[in-house]
Amino acid sequence: MNYRMIAYSVGRILVAVAATMTIPLVLSIYYGERNAAAYLIPMLISLAIGALVSIKTPKNKSFFVREGFIIVALAWIGISLIGALPFYISGQIPKYVDCFFETVSGFTTTGSSILPNVENLSKSLLFWRSFTHWLGGMGVLVFTMAIFSAKDTRTTYMMKAEMPGPIVGKLVSKWQFSARILYLMYIALTVLEIIFLLFGGMPLFDSVVHAFGTAGTGGFGIKNSSIAFYNSAYIDYVISIFMILFGMNFNIFYLMLIRKFVQIKDNEEIRWYLCIIAASAVIISLNILPMYKSFGESFRYAFFQVSSVMTTTGYSTADFAKWPMLSQMILVILMVIGGCAGSTGGGMKVVRVMILSKIMVRTIKNTASPRSVFSVKTDGKQLEASVVRGIMAYLVVYVMFAGISLIIVSLDNMDFTTTVTAVLATMNNIGPGLGVVGPAGNFAAFSPLSKVVLSVGMLAGRLEFYPILILFSPYTWKRS
Amino acid sequence: MNYRMIAYSVGRILVAVAATMTIPLVLSIYYGERNAAAYLIPMLISLAIGALVSIKTPKNKSFFVREGFIIVALAWIGISLIGALPFYISGQIPKYVDCFFETVSGFTTTGSSILPNVENLSKSLLFWRSFTHWLGGMGVLVFTMAIFSAKDTRTTYMMKAEMPGPIVGKLVSKWQFSARILYLMYIALTVLEIIFLLFGGMPLFDSVVHAFGTAGTGGFGIKNSSIAFYNSAYIDYVISIFMILFGMNFNIFYLMLIRKFVQIKDNEEIRWYLCIIAASAVIISLNILPMYKSFGESFRYAFFQVSSVMTTTGYSTADFAKWPMLSQMILVILMVIGGCAGSTGGGMKVVRVMILSKIMVRTIKNTASPRSVFSVKTDGKQLEASVVRGIMAYLVVYVMFAGISLIIVSLDNMDFTTTVTAVLATMNNIGPGLGVVGPAGNFAAFSPLSKVVLSVGMLAGRLEFYPILILFSPYTWKRS
Repeated sequence: MNYRMIAYSVGRILVAVAATMTIPLVLSIYYGERNAAAYLIPMLISLAIGALVSIKTPKNKSFFVREGFIIVALAWIGISLIGALPFYISGQIPKYVDCFFETVSGFTTTGSSILPNVENLSKSLLFWRSFTHWLGGMGVLVFTMAIFSAKDTRTTYMMKAEMPGPIVGKLVSKWQFSARILYLMYIALTVLEIIFLLFGGMPLFDSVVHAFGTAGTGGFGIKNSSIAFYNSAYIDYVISIFMILFGMNFNIFYLMLIRKFVQIKDNEEIRWYLCIIAASAVIISLNILPMYKSFGESFRYAFFQVSSVMTTTGYSTADFAKWPMLSQMILVILMVIGGCAGSTGGGMKVVRVMILSKIMVRTIKNTASPRSVFSVKTDGKQLEASVVRGIMAYLVVYVMFAGISLIIVSLDNMDFTTTVTAVLATMNNIGPGLGVVGPAGNFAAFSPLSKVVLSVGMLAGRLEFYPILILFSPYTWKRS
Repeated sequence: MNYRMIAYSVGRILVAVAATMTIPLVLSIYYGERNAAAYLIPMLISLAIGALVSIKTPKNKSFFVREGFIIVALAWIGISLIGALPFYISGQIPKYVDCFFETVSGFTTTGSSILPNVENLSKSLLFWRSFTHWLGGMGVLVFTMAIFSAKDTRTTYMMKAEMPGPIVGKLVSKWQFSARILYLMYIALTVLEIIFLLFGGMPLFDSVVHAFGTAGTGGFGIKNSSIAFYNSAYIDYVISIFMILFGMNFNIFYLMLIRKFVQIKDNEEIRWYLCIIAASAVIISLNILPMYKSFGESFRYAFFQVSSVMTTTGYSTADFAKWPMLSQMILVILMVIGGCAGSTGGGMKVVRVMILSKIMVRTIKNTASPRSVFSVKTDGKQLEASVVRGIMAYLVVYVMFAGISLIIVSLDNMDFTTTVTAVLATMNNIGPGLGVVGPAGNFAAFSPLSKVVLSVGMLAGRLEFYPILILFSPYTWKRS
């Protein structure tokens, strides 16, 4: 284990995150909030620790997959611990465990909140809260690399650990574009959304933070009633469509840039993704029709909630916990499916669910005719046995992790619906669940233990389990 | 596809099931119930259809896996349709869909009921209801083979389709003992339980039907308050222990018979099974302690409910839907785990959960050190890649099947807890769930559609999905 290299890499990430805090610091001075210390202290701590461990470049720069995963896990825990300090020092969230939960929820683009009244937060903190979504969405490492080094073959290990989705091979290789191209596309889309929102009459500050929340598929709002506050069909549709865009594989935008439209058309994951959204939106529109004046209105709310949950954003324009059970169940299942691989969305990822469905069909055929070959195809190409196994193993890890979380969180003695959906909503980086943690509720009532467990779940979900599990696995630390 | 052989085999099973109805018929005459027609009509129908299709032995007796699965699926659906008639003809359950649900629940050893007041049923029907548990527990095919032919190499395809659990290889091969030896052990254990229950002062009729319910890990009782009616610690412990015995792999009893105790001690599945029961019982005892007078009393109720749910029996001595959420959540997770492979219990089976846990650990290690070999061991031997894949694929099928069932059942607009646990309780062949379908409730309120879907779920769960899925798969019928 190359400990020096781990410290060096984590240190650089801490420095980068300290740098990002200058924006809310400037804002807090601009708005005359008198809480500059809330940003200066964590910036100093982060810079001091970061600089101390990364000032000298290690001689031995080589490291392997294991180190990559550990760097990612430690970096995310580190930035969450530091990022929580502004909330704590400003005194606006009194308990540190709540600040930590809120910050993890931000960086992991979950959007679950412990705040009963978000409108009480100062503007600079509201900005910082949404900014963590934007930073965490594309990946803190990608961000760091975009700042420090444009290209470095070793960093692929880290990117592999941080990027969502299995590697299926056929798509444009994720690592072939540099971090900077990724970030440029990300920034361009975010700016585009801000412009569209401004056109709808949303104030600048609101447009920026909501665009951050959409881009990261995070879901932190600045109003207690989330997007419903603006009560505008135009704004609902703009955000719906941008949520869908940010839930897509970023390769798609790259393919658009280089004009390979045939490859986009042939991309099975995108087809599944759009079909699931369309089908769910239509079914739910019909299911909730009696609650609204017209199909147009019910579709507007169904489409928004479906886009929000499927992309794991978590904005809301309606309290879906009050919808009929069919709609609620579809939304819960969409929570588990999640966005596309290579997007900022969470969940199992569409490509995994798609391949698991194919595995199911293949298994039934194979059981009926045991001598047939077990093969699963995606985008016209046969998947390697190790990829198929990896995707099934992911489901195993997912189910086991959920089971253990459920047992611990049930210690709080909340009702079954709240317990189950709180675990699912955090693990899949959605935000709201049903029951006490529904769109109109929050996570404040949980015990500190549950908040920590749910925070670990958010991190595990965002990083697709392995970095967190490897960090905490005794096996990792046993071998030298 | 050898259609003649399929018809012949299903026909013989129908004849065998008609024969079993003589016992409730005799009982109904003995108790002077005046509803002999309720048994005679289905017996005649079953005999007529059965004899018609199986009177001439097909010339071509060869068939393969696919036919085996289809025979099993058709046979189970057929006996459920026939077995439901006594309830319907007697008029004691007015709707046929309810009769079908109740009978499927019986044969699949689920124990979910649509009866708000079971004590209204006549004695012979109560007997028939519990007798279906006993017949379905060991398997209707094993029963048929025990009657018609002691040994037949072709029948292994059918037994394979009906027997629960993956084939892990190391255990004593399931097919090496004949159906008769299996049945003798099954009968011996059942008689032993009847004797123990009689000693506890339970009336003969009650002892017999409860032994049937325990042996099949079914759970149909004859009192509205289930086993709580007898209010006897002795009876609670006798039934608890017999539930645990019937939830074990029957190979264990065979190994005991041939005195291979070392193999029993080395059996990992049994160790996991007993440890999970012990740990769950202790945790729940402590969790519910404030609700009871002493640890002894809380342990008695915790142990009973854990044994009942883990073995997927479904008897109850306490309304666990009123217990703290930790206890409820543990019970829900035990529902999914289920009994041992090769037992009469349902669920995923302990061996699958055990291997999935090992796959999880192995996957974490493998992700950290990608060049290491991916190997999973059970009972000291390495599992073949195809077995590992088969078990992971089982989880995939399980999750997908659950997802589709959840969506259809949620059309009834019950609450989330009821919807989720109704699907889990039937698919895993438990019986009661939480909410409306808790130990004190029943399944009467569901729509006919949901009752059919839940019935299919019970059949799919009992037969481990593939027979039912293969029967309904277009692929099966496309190829000639």
